[in-house]
Amino acid sequence: MNYSPLNPPKTTVKRGRQFLQVPGPTNIPDRVLNAMHRPAMDVYKGFTPAKEEAIHLARQIFQTEQQVAIYASSGHGAWEAALVNVLNPGEKVLIPVAGNFSKNWGVMARAHNIEVEEVEGDWRKPVDPAAVEERLRADTNHEIKAVAMVQVDTATGIWSDVEAVRKAIDAANHPALFLVDVIACLATTDFQVDNWGVDVGVAGSQKGLMGPPGLGLCSVSEKAIDKAMTVDTPRHYFSWKRAFADRSKFRFSGTAPEHAIWGTIEGMRMVLEEGLDQVFARHHRLAEAVRRCVAHWAEGGALEFVGVDPDFRSNAVTSVLVPENFDPDLLLKTADLRYDTVIAQGLGKFEGRTFRIGHMGELNPPMILGALAGIEMAMQTVGLAHKPGGVQAAMDYIAKT
Amino acid sequence: MNYSPLNPPKTTVKRGRQFLQVPGPTNIPDRVLNAMHRPAMDVYKGFTPAKEEAIHLARQIFQTEQQVAIYASSGHGAWEAALVNVLNPGEKVLIPVAGNFSKNWGVMARAHNIEVEEVEGDWRKPVDPAAVEERLRADTNHEIKAVAMVQVDTATGIWSDVEAVRKAIDAANHPALFLVDVIACLATTDFQVDNWGVDVGVAGSQKGLMGPPGLGLCSVSEKAIDKAMTVDTPRHYFSWKRAFADRSKFRFSGTAPEHAIWGTIEGMRMVLEEGLDQVFARHHRLAEAVRRCVAHWAEGGALEFVGVDPDFRSNAVTSVLVPENFDPDLLLKTADLRYDTVIAQGLGKFEGRTFRIGHMGELNPPMILGALAGIEMAMQTVGLAHKPGGVQAAMDYIAKT
Amino acid sequence: MNYSPLNPPKTTVKRGRQFLQVPGPTNIPDRVLNAMHRPAMDVYKGFTPAKEEAIHLARQIFQTEQQVAIYASSGHGAWEAALVNVLNPGEKVLIPVAGNFSKNWGVMARAHNIEVEEVEGDWRKPVDPAAVEERLRADTNHEIKAVAMVQVDTATGIWSDVEAVRKAIDAANHPALFLVDVIACLATTDFQVDNWGVDVGVAGSQKGLMGPPGLGLCSVSEKAIDKAMTVDTPRHYFSWKRAFADRSKFRFSGTAPEHAIWGTIEGMRMVLEEGLDQVFARHHRLAEAVRRCVAHWAEGGALEFVGVDPDFRSNAVTSVLVPENFDPDLLLKTADLRYDTVIAQGLGKFEGRTFRIGHMGELNPPMILGALAGIEMAMQTVGLAHKPGGVQAAMDYIAKT
Amino acid sequence: MNYSPLNPPKTTVKRGRQFLQVPGPTNIPDRVLNAMHRPAMDVYKGFTPAKEEAIHLARQIFQTEQQVAIYASSGHGAWEAALVNVLNPGEKVLIPVAGNFSKNWGVMARAHNIEVEEVEGDWRKPVDPAAVEERLRADTNHEIKAVAMVQVDTATGIWSDVEAVRKAIDAANHPALFLVDVIACLATTDFQVDNWGVDVGVAGSQKGLMGPPGLGLCSVSEKAIDKAMTVDTPRHYFSWKRAFADRSKFRFSGTAPEHAIWGTIEGMRMVLEEGLDQVFARHHRLAEAVRRCVAHWAEGGALEFVGVDPDFRSNAVTSVLVPENFDPDLLLKTADLRYDTVIAQGLGKFEGRTFRIGHMGELNPPMILGALAGIEMAMQTVGLAHKPGGVQAAMDYIAKT
Repeated sequence: MNYSPLNPPKTTVKRGRQFLQVPGPTNIPDRVLNAMHRPAMDVYKGFTPAKEEAIHLARQIFQTEQQVAIYASSGHGAWEAALVNVLNPGEKVLIPVAGNFSKNWGVMARAHNIEVEEVEGDWRKPVDPAAVEERLRADTNHEIKAVAMVQVDTATGIWSDVEAVRKAIDAANHPALFLVDVIACLATTDFQVDNWGVDVGVAGSQKGLMGPPGLGLCSVSEKAIDKAMTVDTPRHYFSWKRAFADRSKFRFSGTAPEHAIWGTIEGMRMVLEEGLDQVFARHHRLAEAVRRCVAHWAEGGALEFVGVDPDFRSNAVTSVLVPENFDPDLLLKTADLRYDTVIAQGLGKFEGRTFRIGHMGELNPPMILGALAGIEMAMQTVGLAHKPGGVQAAMDYIAKT
Repeated sequence: MNYSPLNPPKTTVKRGRQFLQVPGPTNIPDRVLNAMHRPAMDVYKGFTPAKEEAIHLARQIFQTEQQVAIYASSGHGAWEAALVNVLNPGEKVLIPVAGNFSKNWGVMARAHNIEVEEVEGDWRKPVDPAAVEERLRADTNHEIKAVAMVQVDTATGIWSDVEAVRKAIDAANHPALFLVDVIACLATTDFQVDNWGVDVGVAGSQKGLMGPPGLGLCSVSEKAIDKAMTVDTPRHYFSWKRAFADRSKFRFSGTAPEHAIWGTIEGMRMVLEEGLDQVFARHHRLAEAVRRCVAHWAEGGALEFVGVDPDFRSNAVTSVLVPENFDPDLLLKTADLRYDTVIAQGLGKFEGRTFRIGHMGELNPPMILGALAGIEMAMQTVGLAHKPGGVQAAMDYIAKT
Repeated sequence: MNYSPLNPPKTTVKRGRQFLQVPGPTNIPDRVLNAMHRPAMDVYKGFTPAKEEAIHLARQIFQTEQQVAIYASSGHGAWEAALVNVLNPGEKVLIPVAGNFSKNWGVMARAHNIEVEEVEGDWRKPVDPAAVEERLRADTNHEIKAVAMVQVDTATGIWSDVEAVRKAIDAANHPALFLVDVIACLATTDFQVDNWGVDVGVAGSQKGLMGPPGLGLCSVSEKAIDKAMTVDTPRHYFSWKRAFADRSKFRFSGTAPEHAIWGTIEGMRMVLEEGLDQVFARHHRLAEAVRRCVAHWAEGGALEFVGVDPDFRSNAVTSVLVPENFDPDLLLKTADLRYDTVIAQGLGKFEGRTFRIGHMGELNPPMILGALAGIEMAMQTVGLAHKPGGVQAAMDYIAKT
Repeated sequence: MNYSPLNPPKTTVKRGRQFLQVPGPTNIPDRVLNAMHRPAMDVYKGFTPAKEEAIHLARQIFQTEQQVAIYASSGHGAWEAALVNVLNPGEKVLIPVAGNFSKNWGVMARAHNIEVEEVEGDWRKPVDPAAVEERLRADTNHEIKAVAMVQVDTATGIWSDVEAVRKAIDAANHPALFLVDVIACLATTDFQVDNWGVDVGVAGSQKGLMGPPGLGLCSVSEKAIDKAMTVDTPRHYFSWKRAFADRSKFRFSGTAPEHAIWGTIEGMRMVLEEGLDQVFARHHRLAEAVRRCVAHWAEGGALEFVGVDPDFRSNAVTSVLVPENFDPDLLLKTADLRYDTVIAQGLGKFEGRTFRIGHMGELNPPMILGALAGIEMAMQTVGLAHKPGGVQAAMDYIAKT
């Protein structure tokens, strides 16, 4: 066969639904789109109930009774809020590095004159709680003011154990604030803000919450607000001192992003109607189907999971290493143009070395199997070595569970 | 495994998109839904351009330069229009029977005091043009005023050769009007009104046209309008005498169904943007993938295509016979509840004996493969005998074409 | 000023919402449009709950516990259903004529070989119950099988007293079935099917029910179904013998018009949430505001209400006579092109003699006042004689009530 | 009459469209909402054309050939971007104060350690270019690094002359950068970035652009980018150094807010289809109608325009002073609850002293007249002294123009 993405067939009109399997933005449910299809509203009196509902729902999903801040921003904006509100210039944040986004946190913190110390890590392994504990134990005069980690790194697909890091902090008897990026995995993977003593959880609307991109959310502990009231780091748009001036009533900076909030409210309602446990179980089942499929493809030896430890492959995204001489972009383009399936490119260290399959949010078996079929056919089309039958392996797993 | 549709798991909240693979209504594209999301309009002056565009587009899809009538009605309503406008009470229509809907035409015609003569046929085979020709040759005094056939019977999934029947009429040198039901297959299968001398083509909005259900369309030849002007059959809502009082300007009976028309216009635009040839080729490819899958499943002998002749299995819908002691409803419910895939039950003679997979309209490879995966897993779940690997067979076919 | 619709300003781009004040289709609420913005569904099992809800809601709005039939059709289709199911060819229907649509019922009935006798009436006055009673008393051998009237004639804006006609039938002790067209006024004006002994009520989706055009609805009494089982009038699409074969379960003819039904369900929910009494009161208040405005305009003598008796001007539509030498089309075009307000032309006898202001459905004070302002400015622009200040008169009335 | 907002009638169900006449967010056109009603998209390759179109359209509306930055943020976020990218800590910005938002710019700048010097002004008058010139002439060693002004202050409804301030800067021969907040008036009022030498223009999506709230936009001159490359102010999310690393290709910080961008693209397309000149002319006409109405109401002496100089009352919003003993909230609530018209409260110095009527974006005559009618009736209901007939005055003006 002589198909090539560089020489596509004459008809380029696409038909049917695109299978969007990137790790965000994700498939937006019709209910969410409908919730956004409405006129704007007076932000002063009219919109207040929606703001309150959004916060109420976000609290349940963060599993917290503390505060929630919401921004018209990307997840990066919510990160910035987390950093600039609890760390003074010159104060130190400890970042256990295990992928692209923990590196990025450091870059952003330094831009705000926050001192960054990284706990070196392997991008193919999760955060090592023992290394965190060791470093904190050594910090006897508590120069470290915060520990900042990523629960699931979108680039690697690896899940790190937040609860274990919390225990490491406690074991070191260290007072550092605990900041956790759950952008890639909130509402796909258990995350217990209050039980695990998380001071700031950082999330976005466009992944497990099934909303449109454009909203950043932070869970904010009382301890974090206390610190925010004293911090000198220059800030205004993202300032909690301003937003929580009345501690229990979050205030937007400027006009609230009404449509993004209405959409995300609807997504959060859907998460809670299904029930967090069921949401996590569904994500596990579909993610495991993807892993069975990838493991089958990989049997010949050409492909590899980025995450070397099977126990830490996340339920949100799967990252797959390709042979060195293969350009994954060829696979991506073919899957998209020829098989209507959109997967993601590699990021950071893995740029040009991986492809990534997102599996979060509004998903069910035929959606994930259709996408896996699209990928497997694309592999066949471009000649990427793999053992055929991955979709069948995924089907067998799903049918049995 | 002890899963049963009668004993479903506790979580009954469904997530993700339903894979709707029934032979109508079909997957409605977002463009179509958006086209319907607008305020109503004055029907006198405001709506006229939309009416004209709808007729203009329908003409191209029917491949005719003659007239088109549009109704707020189901396809059944358009059938009724076809019959009551060209046949007087007591006049005879010849119906070659090859499935459920050709039987139904007879019932409807008789309800209007039209005489019906059936050409007996086998529900597992297409219409036999030779039998039609033979009967017409015998009708030397032209008592038969019309021949009425179905291009694809939705119940059997069998395609009949409209062009060959036209040739049979011509060979018999018979003046009968030629009426063809293409409800199940317009815009999936070639249908050439003018080239094939079709006097009335009957279609609905909700199949290959990708619109919402609620619109019936008829192509109407000049000869059919001529007859309509003289016919005495009582009618008003569906009357062409009234609707084509000004021959070239179709007039609605009452308020036009604006939203259904806007939606169907958008669907027809999409069909024509893709190009009729490409639309037919895409349907053939996806239908053939379904047939490869079903043929694979059927290798063990438990399943069978309804259509015994492979050359006449349609590109719109595939109908599959199950073993006598198996209730296909169990498969349907399991596919739906457990695998989010909706297929159709048997109709007429095949009620309780078949399941049907629709494959028309807004479809691409991962959509059809996801659905086939849902069906294959459901077979596994309910223990319906089949050879596993049908999805793989479909993938192999698609990847090669 | 030299503005003319024939010489419009250079910018023809329209901005802002069109004020649609025709007597149907009406302003569709966003909730209704959102309810229609969803994928199609399997009609066999999936759609049944929606069908049942539609019937349940329609029963409450018709104020009946009897049956309801729903069609993919315009209101004209529902009329046809009313006639062909309860009258045999040759049977007589008595039609008190008071406008355009009672005339039309006669035309349609005759098309189905039903005998029509009209009670002559004045298009500027309501139906005269005494005349109906007199005629029925004279029909001692009960040749008249049905009385068919219109509650509000869309062309004249005049309301007739359905309850009084019921009493006239009773006073004559006549067994005729009672058919009532409420297309223009259901859910704007009280209509009590069971209390008033209405055998068939005929309505459409696109007026007071606030749905899209494309759905016809009939309330059907047990007596009407009994008759339908025996009637010989040729029919199929609209047949109640078929639709109510199982008396308590209405069956569609072909694929149900899902989107029109979802939309109309939402409109009916809104009517019932507001409460029928409140809906009628709101329509009365806004209609009275329109009447105050028109009465003010008319003070100079150039304009006149079509309805001569103030007690019978309807709450659904107001019809206004213009001077003989004035072409109302000039007013309509100017109101539309220059003031974004769409009103309706005259119909039937009043074509070219009236303009009509619809005031039904999704309406509130600023909507109706904005439209009245548009009309008053258009009068000024085209030089149609009127006393300025009509909008102020309407405002004064609304502010006081 | 004993109506009171504290004692509303029993039916609280609202019907009909809300007339939203606040100075943002504004009436969102259906086209914009439809443009947002679509699935998310891959941000890497898929979304790039939309980003480029958004920038291309924004350039035309800003009347610039230089750069544009777009944020998931409110207008406040775009302000912050304007400040932190062109001013170092300790550098001075000169702010001519003429209302609430010029005060707020100062607060925000100080939060980022930027030195602020205000040119004192009167909240009831526009910025005085002469005072700016005088101050800049005195700044012989160019300590002032930027001049930051507001074109229309949303709180006062007063328009200041940006071109005149540019001329003042030039007359003083001062190199300060020129920052202008046009959030409240872009696409309602002429604003010529390149011709007037504006270095940063700051806008939001939810006003004249008719998009949803949630997008901040900045026009950015080459000179401003040059400065941004050298500035030390801590920043990351809003950083132009990062965003314009490749000078001609703006890069988002994190996932682009796709739906807000699609919506705002559609709004900008509509602005440009209408044509900027026509857009300004339409806003002038409707704003002047509002002013005629308010001037009429004010004849008795109880009400007053905030802006004392008629030449500087803006085309975006009109702010009206009420008598000292009157609580404008009573008017707002009554207009909303009883007359479905939403106007805005006073801000800053005018909190509790004014009400504001927004008149920007998707507006036409009946929309604004319906709202004015709602306000006039509310005045009557709550007994706020006014000369009746304001709506008539507005109608007379519109009909004549």
